[in-house]
Amino acid sequence: MPDQIAGGGLLHRRGLLKATAAGVAGGFLLPAKATEDWMTHSGEAQNGYGSPSRFANLQREQLGGHPFGAEAGSSSTPLQDLNGSITPNSLHFERHHSGIPDIDPDKHRLTIFGEVEQNLQFSYEDLMAYPKESHIYFLECSGNSFRNALPTASDQTAGSLNGLLSCAEWTGVPLHYLLDEAGVNKKARWIIAEGADASGMSRSVPIDMALDNVLVALYQNGEPLRPAQGYPMRLFVPGSEGNISVKWLHRLKVQQTPAYTKDETSKYTDLLKDGTAEMFSLKMEVKSLITSPSGKMNLQRKGVYEISGLAWSGEGAIRKVEVSADGGRTWAEAALQNTSRPLALTRFRIPWRWVGQNVVLQSRAIDDRGNVQPSRASALARYSSGSFYHYNGIQSWQVSAEGVVKNVFA
Amino acid sequence: MPDQIAGGGLLHRRGLLKATAAGVAGGFLLPAKATEDWMTHSGEAQNGYGSPSRFANLQREQLGGHPFGAEAGSSSTPLQDLNGSITPNSLHFERHHSGIPDIDPDKHRLTIFGEVEQNLQFSYEDLMAYPKESHIYFLECSGNSFRNALPTASDQTAGSLNGLLSCAEWTGVPLHYLLDEAGVNKKARWIIAEGADASGMSRSVPIDMALDNVLVALYQNGEPLRPAQGYPMRLFVPGSEGNISVKWLHRLKVQQTPAYTKDETSKYTDLLKDGTAEMFSLKMEVKSLITSPSGKMNLQRKGVYEISGLAWSGEGAIRKVEVSADGGRTWAEAALQNTSRPLALTRFRIPWRWVGQNVVLQSRAIDDRGNVQPSRASALARYSSGSFYHYNGIQSWQVSAEGVVKNVFA
Repeated sequence: MPDQIAGGGLLHRRGLLKATAAGVAGGFLLPAKATEDWMTHSGEAQNGYGSPSRFANLQREQLGGHPFGAEAGSSSTPLQDLNGSITPNSLHFERHHSGIPDIDPDKHRLTIFGEVEQNLQFSYEDLMAYPKESHIYFLECSGNSFRNALPTASDQTAGSLNGLLSCAEWTGVPLHYLLDEAGVNKKARWIIAEGADASGMSRSVPIDMALDNVLVALYQNGEPLRPAQGYPMRLFVPGSEGNISVKWLHRLKVQQTPAYTKDETSKYTDLLKDGTAEMFSLKMEVKSLITSPSGKMNLQRKGVYEISGLAWSGEGAIRKVEVSADGGRTWAEAALQNTSRPLALTRFRIPWRWVGQNVVLQSRAIDDRGNVQPSRASALARYSSGSFYHYNGIQSWQVSAEGVVKNVFA
Repeated sequence: MPDQIAGGGLLHRRGLLKATAAGVAGGFLLPAKATEDWMTHSGEAQNGYGSPSRFANLQREQLGGHPFGAEAGSSSTPLQDLNGSITPNSLHFERHHSGIPDIDPDKHRLTIFGEVEQNLQFSYEDLMAYPKESHIYFLECSGNSFRNALPTASDQTAGSLNGLLSCAEWTGVPLHYLLDEAGVNKKARWIIAEGADASGMSRSVPIDMALDNVLVALYQNGEPLRPAQGYPMRLFVPGSEGNISVKWLHRLKVQQTPAYTKDETSKYTDLLKDGTAEMFSLKMEVKSLITSPSGKMNLQRKGVYEISGLAWSGEGAIRKVEVSADGGRTWAEAALQNTSRPLALTRFRIPWRWVGQNVVLQSRAIDDRGNVQPSRASALARYSSGSFYHYNGIQSWQVSAEGVVKNVFA
């Protein structure tokens, strides 16, 4: 590990303070005036439900061009504007197959049927009486980062390239309580989950997963789910591709085989190099990306910056993140946020001194099972050239000598 | 620990499943119809910045009656509507002394001066280059639960009684980096923090605390701070009374003595029984409350419920929460959320069977320093009868035979 300025311009984090002092501190000056403009009059009174600053300009980006229109599109979390590891509910990514239904929770029912001893039906109020758990989990769309799998765009932000990725504290009823109560037959191997949107979005979940840590989620970051996230209830399958966490959950059918629904055959299936299709590859593999500096940012000065990003794995917790400032020749270990939570986003950070050279910044995550995030070339090696799901290759950001940051396919 | 139904009606959590099956499960029935009303047409398309369901009706409650008007009032988190431990940014409690200023971050400066080797001034962009950390911390107003210290209200919710309490992931620059860079003189013992609102809200922070885990916070639950929470930057002093985490932070003066500002002498000081005033009692002590069932709820049926609530301590992590369903005669240990985080809210839960009797529900928290939440009588014993800050007595909810829940002063 470098303890001072490395070849690629990285600083070890222990070497930071003096560099920062030289890089960004102001000089000697008088105290600021005690009365700024906004100190001359009372500010706004508080309201019932708050909102961000008009100066912060926070927006999800609509990923356009879906042939079925905006109701079937997606919108990405602006990762480049955020820090920490929680995504605020208003900026959680969205992917809908037929828009956001406006469901009255008093009229909504969850039905469990099929290969069970007794069919069960639950109202929202019924579920409120069940034991609940809260966990911080990431959610990533299977098609996240598809533009890096099929290189089509360089003038993009971290969010528009990789922002079908968010993280929240999810609270709900462990599904095993409900399945145990229904009494799953010994031969049952799958549950088919269906949402109450107009597309009837449906997925097959292996019974072993369903009996493990799957939730019927009712709350996100403390408050009841948003309609865009499945209000009044959604399935939540930690570590797995986003759309198996079926929103607006209203039916769970227990059976011996998968259902091969339209949503797991026409989509979310990987076409391999040999022409066969890999189905039910549900776990999202180890991955990371630098969110700052990142695409469309413009470094205004030479000096010290904090390189910061996110790492996650559908297999467990993040053990280590390495960062390169020379396109992968040398790597330095980043600081991880104090607690690395399994199946959650982990923030990493490392100081970096930019001296005005043209460089490529990359990050590489390793999880506690020993899985290492692959290079772009090896991430793509298994798949047909037309396939773009489950892409977890290393993200490369080029910083030009002028300080312009853009996506490159390194 | 009871392993079955206890005298007061508590169920040990291991004894839950069968009780729940008897209590709330639906009977045998046919699958729900596959097409609900909202499945007959596409839903809404997504927008740039999401919002909650119209059916959820989430609102902070304005605590009225402040003589200086709404700009100097407070609004409380609706704890009874939430679950988990994170408070969404739009529902974080607020307490302002002169309203919410509308600050342009490009014009805002943070100045450090006084007993330092060199004065320093930082723009928002300057701070972005510094090393940052993210931590989940609670924030509680010193005056939270004042109505239980001065009993004036029984027809109140958990939020209107105790909701000057929230919890978020805060990301910012550890203050010690900035103070080290300024070079604090050996004799300095305090820093005076001033906000850029019209009231110039100011507090004195002991230097040992300032050099420990205090942040200059820039992000809350991932996104830049809201104006109501100090945008573009606030001090964050973990575990301490809310208003020392000065919002809209623009000046830090280092000196040998506290400043005895108006905001720490006329308010936030405890009048003791002997007539003396206790100042700078900053740490919020160990506390808990049941958020469900809670005030103004109405139990509609007999059977099993999940008792759920929050526990926290300004001294460390929560080690144990006990719940009583018989007004404190017997106690059972609640399940804590998987990770008990220091200086953060911890969710506790325990199943409870209500058979229609009149009962008093209480919770009692114990932290990892061994501090035990006191009864109402002992919490009040130290203070003059007119004093209401730092109240951490046990919250008692009475459930009537009709199922009506209200605050009682047990």
